[in-house]
Amino acid sequence: MEETRLDAAPSGPVGRIKAWFYEELEPPAWPRHGLSPLNRLLSFVILFSCIAAVLETEPTVVEGNERLFAIIEIVFVAIFIAEYLVRLWIAPMLPGLAGRRFPRLRYLVSWPALIDLAAILPVLLLVGGSHSLLMRLLRLIRLLRFAKLARFSSALNYLFEAIHARRFELVVSLCVGLLLLVFSSTLLYLVEGDVQPEHFGSIPRAMWWAVVTLTTVGYGDAVPVTALGKLCAGATAVAGISIIAMPTGILAAAFSDALQRRKHPSDGADA
Amino acid sequence: MEETRLDAAPSGPVGRIKAWFYEELEPPAWPRHGLSPLNRLLSFVILFSCIAAVLETEPTVVEGNERLFAIIEIVFVAIFIAEYLVRLWIAPMLPGLAGRRFPRLRYLVSWPALIDLAAILPVLLLVGGSHSLLMRLLRLIRLLRFAKLARFSSALNYLFEAIHARRFELVVSLCVGLLLLVFSSTLLYLVEGDVQPEHFGSIPRAMWWAVVTLTTVGYGDAVPVTALGKLCAGATAVAGISIIAMPTGILAAAFSDALQRRKHPSDGADA
Amino acid sequence: MEETRLDAAPSGPVGRIKAWFYEELEPPAWPRHGLSPLNRLLSFVILFSCIAAVLETEPTVVEGNERLFAIIEIVFVAIFIAEYLVRLWIAPMLPGLAGRRFPRLRYLVSWPALIDLAAILPVLLLVGGSHSLLMRLLRLIRLLRFAKLARFSSALNYLFEAIHARRFELVVSLCVGLLLLVFSSTLLYLVEGDVQPEHFGSIPRAMWWAVVTLTTVGYGDAVPVTALGKLCAGATAVAGISIIAMPTGILAAAFSDALQRRKHPSDGADA
Amino acid sequence: MEETRLDAAPSGPVGRIKAWFYEELEPPAWPRHGLSPLNRLLSFVILFSCIAAVLETEPTVVEGNERLFAIIEIVFVAIFIAEYLVRLWIAPMLPGLAGRRFPRLRYLVSWPALIDLAAILPVLLLVGGSHSLLMRLLRLIRLLRFAKLARFSSALNYLFEAIHARRFELVVSLCVGLLLLVFSSTLLYLVEGDVQPEHFGSIPRAMWWAVVTLTTVGYGDAVPVTALGKLCAGATAVAGISIIAMPTGILAAAFSDALQRRKHPSDGADA
Repeated sequence: MEETRLDAAPSGPVGRIKAWFYEELEPPAWPRHGLSPLNRLLSFVILFSCIAAVLETEPTVVEGNERLFAIIEIVFVAIFIAEYLVRLWIAPMLPGLAGRRFPRLRYLVSWPALIDLAAILPVLLLVGGSHSLLMRLLRLIRLLRFAKLARFSSALNYLFEAIHARRFELVVSLCVGLLLLVFSSTLLYLVEGDVQPEHFGSIPRAMWWAVVTLTTVGYGDAVPVTALGKLCAGATAVAGISIIAMPTGILAAAFSDALQRRKHPSDGADA
Repeated sequence: MEETRLDAAPSGPVGRIKAWFYEELEPPAWPRHGLSPLNRLLSFVILFSCIAAVLETEPTVVEGNERLFAIIEIVFVAIFIAEYLVRLWIAPMLPGLAGRRFPRLRYLVSWPALIDLAAILPVLLLVGGSHSLLMRLLRLIRLLRFAKLARFSSALNYLFEAIHARRFELVVSLCVGLLLLVFSSTLLYLVEGDVQPEHFGSIPRAMWWAVVTLTTVGYGDAVPVTALGKLCAGATAVAGISIIAMPTGILAAAFSDALQRRKHPSDGADA
Repeated sequence: MEETRLDAAPSGPVGRIKAWFYEELEPPAWPRHGLSPLNRLLSFVILFSCIAAVLETEPTVVEGNERLFAIIEIVFVAIFIAEYLVRLWIAPMLPGLAGRRFPRLRYLVSWPALIDLAAILPVLLLVGGSHSLLMRLLRLIRLLRFAKLARFSSALNYLFEAIHARRFELVVSLCVGLLLLVFSSTLLYLVEGDVQPEHFGSIPRAMWWAVVTLTTVGYGDAVPVTALGKLCAGATAVAGISIIAMPTGILAAAFSDALQRRKHPSDGADA
Repeated sequence: MEETRLDAAPSGPVGRIKAWFYEELEPPAWPRHGLSPLNRLLSFVILFSCIAAVLETEPTVVEGNERLFAIIEIVFVAIFIAEYLVRLWIAPMLPGLAGRRFPRLRYLVSWPALIDLAAILPVLLLVGGSHSLLMRLLRLIRLLRFAKLARFSSALNYLFEAIHARRFELVVSLCVGLLLLVFSSTLLYLVEGDVQPEHFGSIPRAMWWAVVTLTTVGYGDAVPVTALGKLCAGATAVAGISIIAMPTGILAAAFSDALQRRKHPSDGADA
């Protein structure tokens, strides 16, 4: 990688700035442990811009502060545009692109660059935007900025790996849960359908009750009222905690395994 | 198995079609890994016919689409009748029936064939059926088609095996849970019985509250209102999560064990 | 034990009946595996008498069936009195009492005999009883008959053993949970106390909300309404599932260990 | 330690009293197992004073008993002042302070002494205090007395150690949970925002619903009512129990490990 950088970067002050940006912006190029100061700053900016996007949907917060939110948004977008341009500038130094033709064009159509673009574009369209549904959706695309953080995160890989390693167990658990869902919905539909048609008048309606009960969320908006319905619901709740809990245990074990392996990679062979 | 097939199947084009159906329809006869294309198609048909049966109970979905649902049902039933007849045709080639007398009659009274029949019959009775309770029940028998999927599934066996391996622990857990259920119901019946007779006026009524609390579902339709009642209910909730959680942990471990054993059958000896 | 019985039991037909009752009624004296037929019958009678006692508290079930319940109760009590007298009769044959003075008197004041007496006495006092609170309490003493089952159960011992083995972990978990309970109640009392005095107007009142939230039961009768209150409640719910879940995991592991040890007692040394 | 004490403590009756107090009050100086009788008494006093502080916030308990609570408080504070003074008196005997200059002054500014002071001070200010918010806050500072118990507790250390050992797993779990929280809130905000603006009219509002659902608390104050909203909420509940449960499993395992290590410290090397 050292050679690649030396080849691509011209010497002189501009070359040194380019090399500095490359080291700061590309996590694998950072020689020390953890994230570089610039990337740490960008992570915070991404986080704060997402918090601002979330808060902006709350009228009581925005009211009277429209200007403040607009300024914050302009600052954030300016930073993201600057980041986008700098990344485009240093693209020819990337290990995967160095030495190939049209490195900047290739970078422009890569996933990270498209995500970065998606984080900037909607706001450019939204200057003085109203609150119609389309505007609301476009504004929320800014939440995709969270995806920008994926660049820095290797932990999610371990999670996906853990899920993949136990996919068979998880699929079986989900099938058993689904069967239980259909079975208990059908039962309650037959027992309570005539008494509470608005909640148990059809199997899809009863499914809302069933999923709320089997996950032990228990909102209480749909509750059986007949004695037989309560008996069936009680049995569902008991069976539910036993069977729905399986993916929980499996995921917890798998996730723990995957993360322990990360610390002791040599154990991977016998585990 | 190869010999069995050669013995039973006559040569010629009909024999070759029969052999093709046998390989496609019988999971153990499929030479490659996974399900055969025909069985995969049938699984989807079963799944979709169950989804259609579930959706058909919802008046707002059916209204105006009665004809569509009728056509879908006719198509599904036609497929299931064809499948039933082909399976009956190739029954003499089944390893357990080949060489015995009346193989097709024996097949007709076997469990898989009876389930297949149950999936077809009710609909034949229902042409132009009304929405009385009997009709509703007959229509729901179609959900038994889910059971047709059992033919393709070996995962449920591992689940039953896991439950069987820890049946003693599970029975003890259920007994402890039952004792706690009776104890907390009796307590709340004594404490809150006079204040809220509709919810705690008898032990069976209080049991509905107890099962909803011990499983941490917590609908909120029956809630103690006196200070003493809340104290007892709080203690029940705390004791509940400790004791009801046991079958959860046991099942998760057993299920995980059984499925791990599936992957490394050699480990079974020392496990 | 054989000698003890030969010493205490006179020969002749009476002696043989006594010996038969001894073998049937005393679980350790039963030569084969499991429970003797008479003890199995008694277990069912205990279970059914408890179910009857539970159902008798429900007015809609009792109404019109008072006579049936009275007859059932008389039959059950007659069986329990007969059992009590036979046990008293064979008391001198018990290993712990054989050869000592006044064996029957000693048996009368032993725990099992007192529990048996408690199962009979209240009903004798209740002939024609009204439904006052005292009567209700006396009637419920019949539920103590469940305790008669303890004679046959060795599984509860494993549970108590498991709890005892991890008592330190459990006490620490409960202390952490208690601290969290006091902390979150105090927080919500300060934040929501003035808005909803009926639910959060004092720390003990807020504790009801806290215990319902930390156990994830979530009835919904007491719910924060201010933004700050919801923020604190959300943090409580998240912290709660992490910290309250600890006794769950500990108990599940301990219970599983204790029951596995039961099957492979030799493993106990290295476990 | 024996030498330290002999150096610092003058002989004679006062010295012997001082040495007795030192042994009784300093847990590490107590030669036998567990807590000394005086420390056990102090633990109970701390516990009772906290219970009294909690109960005092409940008007129905305090009404008519103001005098009793005042007397109890005076007694508790007198004990804590006496404890504070005795600890100050024996401070020069503490291993960390013995032989250094101004040992009592150094003790006064140490954490345990400041917590002890915080447990006394507010009450001195509160003689005849009213029920304004400031007074209420000052009164609640008495709950900090719980922190006095930390002196005697080594179990919390194991908990913090367990959390620290798995901090990476826990942070990843929390991030995944947070992502799911933002994602499901945004989804419900888009789907139900126009139907129920009071509950789903902005992402922060929908977050209250999301956290209540993902932790399976399920109060039921905010519940989706549209079919699409219920579908999204059901998926959230199912995904939630799988992903939020991870920190539960990780913490349970870590806590169990840390406490097992405490019993078998030699296993720490290979664990």
